[in-house]
Amino acid sequence: MRILLKNGTVINVFTGETEQAHVLIEDEKIIGVGDSYTDEDAREVRDVQGKYICPGFMDGHIHIESSMLTPPEFARAVIAHGTTSVVADPHEIANVCGKAGIRYMLEASENIPMTIYIMLPSCVSATRFDESGAVLVAEDLESFYSHPRVLGLAEVMDYPGVIAEDKEILKKIRAAREHGLTVNGHAPLLSGKKLDQYIAAGIGDDHECSSAEEARERIRKGQRVMIRQGTAAQNLQALLPLFEEPWAHRCLLVSDDKHPADLLKKGHIDDAIRQAVRAGKNPITGIRMATLWAAECFGLRNVGATAPGYMADLLVLDDLAKIKIRDVYCRGRRVVENGWLLPWQESHIRPDLDRAVRNSFHLDALSEDDFHIPYFGVHMCRVIRLIARQLITEEWDADIDFQKDNGIDLERDILKIAVVERHKRTGHKGLGFICGTGMKQGAAASSVAHDSHNLILIGTNERDMALAGNRVREMGGGCTVALNGEIISEMPLPIGGVMSDCSAAAVADQNERLRQSVHLLGVPQELELFMSMAFVSLPVIPHMKMTTRGLVDVNNQKLVSLKCD
Amino acid sequence: MRILLKNGTVINVFTGETEQAHVLIEDEKIIGVGDSYTDEDAREVRDVQGKYICPGFMDGHIHIESSMLTPPEFARAVIAHGTTSVVADPHEIANVCGKAGIRYMLEASENIPMTIYIMLPSCVSATRFDESGAVLVAEDLESFYSHPRVLGLAEVMDYPGVIAEDKEILKKIRAAREHGLTVNGHAPLLSGKKLDQYIAAGIGDDHECSSAEEARERIRKGQRVMIRQGTAAQNLQALLPLFEEPWAHRCLLVSDDKHPADLLKKGHIDDAIRQAVRAGKNPITGIRMATLWAAECFGLRNVGATAPGYMADLLVLDDLAKIKIRDVYCRGRRVVENGWLLPWQESHIRPDLDRAVRNSFHLDALSEDDFHIPYFGVHMCRVIRLIARQLITEEWDADIDFQKDNGIDLERDILKIAVVERHKRTGHKGLGFICGTGMKQGAAASSVAHDSHNLILIGTNERDMALAGNRVREMGGGCTVALNGEIISEMPLPIGGVMSDCSAAAVADQNERLRQSVHLLGVPQELELFMSMAFVSLPVIPHMKMTTRGLVDVNNQKLVSLKCD
Repeated sequence: MRILLKNGTVINVFTGETEQAHVLIEDEKIIGVGDSYTDEDAREVRDVQGKYICPGFMDGHIHIESSMLTPPEFARAVIAHGTTSVVADPHEIANVCGKAGIRYMLEASENIPMTIYIMLPSCVSATRFDESGAVLVAEDLESFYSHPRVLGLAEVMDYPGVIAEDKEILKKIRAAREHGLTVNGHAPLLSGKKLDQYIAAGIGDDHECSSAEEARERIRKGQRVMIRQGTAAQNLQALLPLFEEPWAHRCLLVSDDKHPADLLKKGHIDDAIRQAVRAGKNPITGIRMATLWAAECFGLRNVGATAPGYMADLLVLDDLAKIKIRDVYCRGRRVVENGWLLPWQESHIRPDLDRAVRNSFHLDALSEDDFHIPYFGVHMCRVIRLIARQLITEEWDADIDFQKDNGIDLERDILKIAVVERHKRTGHKGLGFICGTGMKQGAAASSVAHDSHNLILIGTNERDMALAGNRVREMGGGCTVALNGEIISEMPLPIGGVMSDCSAAAVADQNERLRQSVHLLGVPQELELFMSMAFVSLPVIPHMKMTTRGLVDVNNQKLVSLKCD
Repeated sequence: MRILLKNGTVINVFTGETEQAHVLIEDEKIIGVGDSYTDEDAREVRDVQGKYICPGFMDGHIHIESSMLTPPEFARAVIAHGTTSVVADPHEIANVCGKAGIRYMLEASENIPMTIYIMLPSCVSATRFDESGAVLVAEDLESFYSHPRVLGLAEVMDYPGVIAEDKEILKKIRAAREHGLTVNGHAPLLSGKKLDQYIAAGIGDDHECSSAEEARERIRKGQRVMIRQGTAAQNLQALLPLFEEPWAHRCLLVSDDKHPADLLKKGHIDDAIRQAVRAGKNPITGIRMATLWAAECFGLRNVGATAPGYMADLLVLDDLAKIKIRDVYCRGRRVVENGWLLPWQESHIRPDLDRAVRNSFHLDALSEDDFHIPYFGVHMCRVIRLIARQLITEEWDADIDFQKDNGIDLERDILKIAVVERHKRTGHKGLGFICGTGMKQGAAASSVAHDSHNLILIGTNERDMALAGNRVREMGGGCTVALNGEIISEMPLPIGGVMSDCSAAAVADQNERLRQSVHLLGVPQELELFMSMAFVSLPVIPHMKMTTRGLVDVNNQKLVSLKCD
């Protein structure tokens, strides 16, 4: 079926020009752009009355799991913001469910009015301390390369491994390159000779640049730079100089991690362009980064432009500078009309795959005793100190009196922390102390704990900890807050323990209630407790982290005992 | 083995900047670029004393057969001009030898210090009138796609077929695209809706643009433009406006067809850049077209830049504006030093493959009688009229008196022309008359006759025609000039009847002797007889051509009789 979008002001992403033109679409594709098309060329004619037409936006690097939404619900949240494709790294679900997690993401993103490309997670598990649900070696990834939506190998976080020529990681990189595909980088602050080594191994881009100078070095050395504007990590302001040539054409826009409330309220890639425009940059430069230049990064030949033969992923804009999106076309089909999302028919996930990702909790019920630390008397212990708005933690060595509440000391803000292995019923757990939360009562538990997503708990007493943890276990994953023997709020994340099966609005709402109930426990407003908890067990971020095997001294990359002596 | 090129002025093709830096090479690859490398990083250190370092040049579209050289000899002719890779369309040898021709080009370009990429010929045979040595359908091409040096489908000349949705040509295009590869275009002067249809079918570029306006339309519609500067077709002057943004980054430099003397005397891609510089353009823009932007056209991720991980195809320039090339590195190995080509070890072609392309002449010996036209009396006949310096020919209807020399009339410059099928001993031949050569005695014969490369002969008498033709037959292909029963000059082209097995200098020399002896026959200096003859049997160029089936009225695409009545 042929549709003519008549009287558009077409943004040409190849040249940066705008031109008055009609756009002819046949089925999924654009087949003509120019002023010589007439109503007779199409079965349906839509007059856009001079409004801007540009290609749909692509997010070049995102972990959909960070939105806590399934791919279809994620699509529902971002399509009206003009996102018609994303390149997703299913790192979280793969850490929980392995290959089944990747298959789930591929299948759950079939038949939605958005294209979800997949990069294969390169670092599952992330570190040797991690007890994840799965380990993916190069051979495990191989079968996925034949899938048409698989575009390469996802962020190679293990840059020390690359530089040290670790065989397994080099094998994964080589495989992607031999398939003619790209390999995403992740190497914050790497520079000079070490950066050369990392890039020479075959790493095509980076999304961790936090200064224009860092980004310029990457571009000069052939990498493309992904300008990241997510919920937590925001690099756009620092990277505004890249919105000029000779840098701009080697850049794309990505979100990395974005929370549902943020997606709903502020937007997605459209918001990144808007922020650049507010800072004085040309909106067309932002649009080119979000379309053609993103597609080029991944070697996609027919996505990201309004030109013959290209996928008909198109936006009609009411306003260019404000990136006000009126209509969205995805693969030739209008999915947003006058700002309103149109309905589409869901496809069904294969029941066996659905079961595989839904039943990821393998853990026996917890009791108060599980959180008891079998020490007596007073000992100098390593306490993890949280820092508001930061992912890094510090070590604080404090005298702990185990005779009194097994060491919990609310006056000194010393709470108990536990990380419980929950994938394979190993019984492994790490127990210790944490300060800096301000919590005065109750407990919180969560299965969102990077990168292995074991069960993490923080509490003022073992009874509420056990209650909060058991509720997460019953839900098959999620976040809970317990107070005085009752669950006062919860967010079920039954899919791999990291994703909800609810809508973005529902998840945003549950998340807000969790926040409020956490503050009831005494946690100050400025601390995002669940976000902080999500990084307390990730032993690649300095300085002191808790894992299922106990405390990890990140700087020295070794397990350390709770007691200092 | 590690080599350090010390103290370079490195041309950065990503940004257009130049920077003072050292370049570290390990085996085939560049592994570092920067100012922090020292002599200790390499086993061998070469101080380039501030000279410019840029990537080796790539010719994005060439028919190596037009140089009449084998791939190794072609490499010998162009490497000192800085060409480290070419994208070749083996259209001519494929028309003669089919798949064996493509295999020969792939194998003959192994282990030479230059990378010869191959595009698979899309139009073998070229037209329905052609009696070529082979026909290649989509299935024939399939097996070649797995070869790492095959980059896609070569120029789709049959643009009417694409627009008319001819199934066979669309199948070939689809196959290339499904392999993730590119498809080259060839559609001179196509514009507007028809151009949209052609591009939408999946055609990524064009090398036939003869005006900047034509090229701009292509770029706006997503094609890349190949700026052609060959021996016959030269579009650089007309396309000079493309050496500025926003056009330049969508352009590359190609030669299409280039003769050996031209390659030796003037150069190759280096000369195209030089000419642009002389016209006031920035040499770095030319270098970017000849390197990174060419590689991008073909989706090559590690060719065309001086950056970590890229192939160590590098040039050291004595002078930037003059593109004076001092040293050439190909895959990390220095192959030109101080302007001198260094020797390398030849690899051997498989004997069976060599035999397959060497024995392409299947034709019985010719006699005078073979050129006799069995008419009596005087008839109005269609005579082909050659036009100096043009490929088009005209029809001249003239009274021919067959009683006198079987129609040959030197006073009116009416000679005999014959095109003899020589691939399959079919005995097919076209006989007729040609004017415009000025030849007063003798005859000339050639097996270089686009696109089917049958035996073409022009002569003042049948005896010399048979002699010239039989000599070509004995040589297994080539060009000859006969006078008074003697061969007065010849150029053997034993490989498919289109390529020599001699060096570029020898071929250029033979070619010059052929030219001189043709003038002995009376042909004026301004007429390149053998080049004109090469296009007299190509029934896609207007207006009147001779084929093995007889005269073709190109405009009406039909066979016509010699006699007008």
